[in-house]
Amino acid sequence: MNIVVAQSGGPTCAINSSLLGVFSHATKYEEIGTIYGSVNGIEGLISDNLVNLNDIICNDDDVELIRQTPSTVLGSCRYKLPDPEKDSKVFETIVANMQKYGIGAFFYIGGNDSMDTVMKLDRYFKLNGLDIVAIGIPKTIDNDLPETDHTPGFGSAAKYVATTAQEIIRDSSVYSAPSVTIIEIMGRDTGWLTASSAVLRANGEKAPHLIYLPEMPFSTAKFLDDVREVQKTHRAVIVAVSEGVEFGEEFQSGKTDTFGHKYLAGVGKALEKLVSTEIGCKVRSIELNVMQRCSSHLSSKRDISEAERIGGAAVAAALEGKSGKMMVFKRVANHPYNVRIECVDVTKVANHVKYFPTEWVTENGNNVTDEAVEYCLPLIQGEQNIRYKNGIPQHFVLQHALPHK
Amino acid sequence: MNIVVAQSGGPTCAINSSLLGVFSHATKYEEIGTIYGSVNGIEGLISDNLVNLNDIICNDDDVELIRQTPSTVLGSCRYKLPDPEKDSKVFETIVANMQKYGIGAFFYIGGNDSMDTVMKLDRYFKLNGLDIVAIGIPKTIDNDLPETDHTPGFGSAAKYVATTAQEIIRDSSVYSAPSVTIIEIMGRDTGWLTASSAVLRANGEKAPHLIYLPEMPFSTAKFLDDVREVQKTHRAVIVAVSEGVEFGEEFQSGKTDTFGHKYLAGVGKALEKLVSTEIGCKVRSIELNVMQRCSSHLSSKRDISEAERIGGAAVAAALEGKSGKMMVFKRVANHPYNVRIECVDVTKVANHVKYFPTEWVTENGNNVTDEAVEYCLPLIQGEQNIRYKNGIPQHFVLQHALPHK
Repeated sequence: MNIVVAQSGGPTCAINSSLLGVFSHATKYEEIGTIYGSVNGIEGLISDNLVNLNDIICNDDDVELIRQTPSTVLGSCRYKLPDPEKDSKVFETIVANMQKYGIGAFFYIGGNDSMDTVMKLDRYFKLNGLDIVAIGIPKTIDNDLPETDHTPGFGSAAKYVATTAQEIIRDSSVYSAPSVTIIEIMGRDTGWLTASSAVLRANGEKAPHLIYLPEMPFSTAKFLDDVREVQKTHRAVIVAVSEGVEFGEEFQSGKTDTFGHKYLAGVGKALEKLVSTEIGCKVRSIELNVMQRCSSHLSSKRDISEAERIGGAAVAAALEGKSGKMMVFKRVANHPYNVRIECVDVTKVANHVKYFPTEWVTENGNNVTDEAVEYCLPLIQGEQNIRYKNGIPQHFVLQHALPHK
Repeated sequence: MNIVVAQSGGPTCAINSSLLGVFSHATKYEEIGTIYGSVNGIEGLISDNLVNLNDIICNDDDVELIRQTPSTVLGSCRYKLPDPEKDSKVFETIVANMQKYGIGAFFYIGGNDSMDTVMKLDRYFKLNGLDIVAIGIPKTIDNDLPETDHTPGFGSAAKYVATTAQEIIRDSSVYSAPSVTIIEIMGRDTGWLTASSAVLRANGEKAPHLIYLPEMPFSTAKFLDDVREVQKTHRAVIVAVSEGVEFGEEFQSGKTDTFGHKYLAGVGKALEKLVSTEIGCKVRSIELNVMQRCSSHLSSKRDISEAERIGGAAVAAALEGKSGKMMVFKRVANHPYNVRIECVDVTKVANHVKYFPTEWVTENGNNVTDEAVEYCLPLIQGEQNIRYKNGIPQHFVLQHALPHK
């Protein structure tokens, strides 16, 4: 049989490594023929836009460059499939294309919404007695997928957040006048990534002094009190705040995406304004923006290698005939760190959210406990050897690889 | 004699290396006794807040950590001295402290405003027949100091801008829908750093497709035309824009700092709004914020080593009795790259600005020529070997070093 792999949702530093995991593992099996890539996630299977990965990933150089390229080499999408029971038209198109290319297994690397796609495809395949399997491979910097200890992409994002927060601490601490610096970190519903900034504690940093997550209620009055309290002992106050913290409708843009999520903007800017008005000291807000999900020059080596491993494990699961499953990490131990890979029903993951545990939030609700540090630390270990050209990391670009191969 | 070194102005990745250059070079001379550091720039010499660097920089470990620590280990300031002819009071305080510590040479690592301090101190010393010399060591990510080919700190900032812009290009190019991504880059008056994003061309990138500098007139109508033109051939349009681009008073905050500079904010956000309203496609603005000046995990090796070299050369110049000078780089050749270090009268630098050459802007005013790429490329070459602890780069913190040493 031939297989197809696709990438979906927001970019990360590790999603291309999971693609490599699928590819490298699949090439080892005689029963697998051509390995296709679907361009722009499931959209490629709808519009018949597949590429032959065997033609594109030709040598170790390609592998190395894909591994250090952030975002999705095959493109991405935010396409939501309808319920197969209510509207089967798009499923018929997808299956027709799968049959055209002799595809017996579909691998989808993505987050929560992508697992919805895996679940619906698996349901459609089973409803129609088709001999195709669908396997989900987790990916999200948000780390908010249930059933798995963590998600590939999170470790690299956390390493970026911690490293950058530390650099911002140095940058913010140079003047003799009091200041407040607010770092806005991604996390629509969950505070995992914002909480990861606390790992700096392991290296003796006191900052970030205040950490706010969407899982906890937020009050502007309490926030100002917290800042004033820290100012008694620290000239340069550093605040890490999750973009998803809710503190007043006026700060929400109100727009929603195709999955019904609200687009959030400006929590950091709003807090900056608040501090400026109410406290009156020097204040700056910094949005880590897309850099926190695409700074592959600073990937976590462990994250990248785990992403590749879990991609390979997905191929093994498919060959065992499993379908409608998502691959997961189960943490065996922290010292020494060890995980094993299993798989779970994708229905347990799709459209569910794993929140940051409230037991790991300090009693006063403005920081996280050492349990959070212990959890995050193993995931940010190790640095990739990045290949530079002209002083800039080299990237792999599908459009450049296609014409001359 | 004893000497004192201080750091001033905005943080960079290279300013601590210039401090190391002064320190390491000074320790080689018998005629130099104690090497002091003035905390928070010139403020330390006013408030009698000096530290003995011989007690703080004890071994190779300290040197290595200081080299990879961004921002200013001695703190910084934005203190503007009065004219010594009009108001000599603060100069008397500074000189009294210098005499108390037996200081015969003052080294100031900083940008344009810091050179104003060097100039005024030198004038005061000469007016009063004091045997003290004052030497300026250039530093600014803005690269806007006259007389020098480039400034330490610029190369690392440019390497960060290019690397990050490339990662943003990957991140922005994943969806099938058209999009515009606007990267706002530091540069109050000059476009050097924004222009440096063009080095990606050397690695085959077409983006950033549009580059706007403060040196060129900006029109919103022309900007929208430019974007629409690029959209004809590129689905994901990438724009690099300098924070200092002027396109309407309504976008300026109007506040000024102690040197009379306007605080700018929101050029990127304003353009994002404009594209959203007038073109209506997906649009995102990204501010590289302080990360572009403090991301020492991604420093340019050449920048760091040149910063150290020019610090050492400043000590040599002081010992030759030079005063009221700033050290400069003169580029000898590009292939192979070679610079020599000289010094110039600080009056030629203080309060003057070196603008990006308009000959290096393309005819249509929305990009830079290959001359800009040739100029920038040598400055971003090489990567530092960063020492990590717990997965995070290790930093040197003066406050941690002081008590137990």
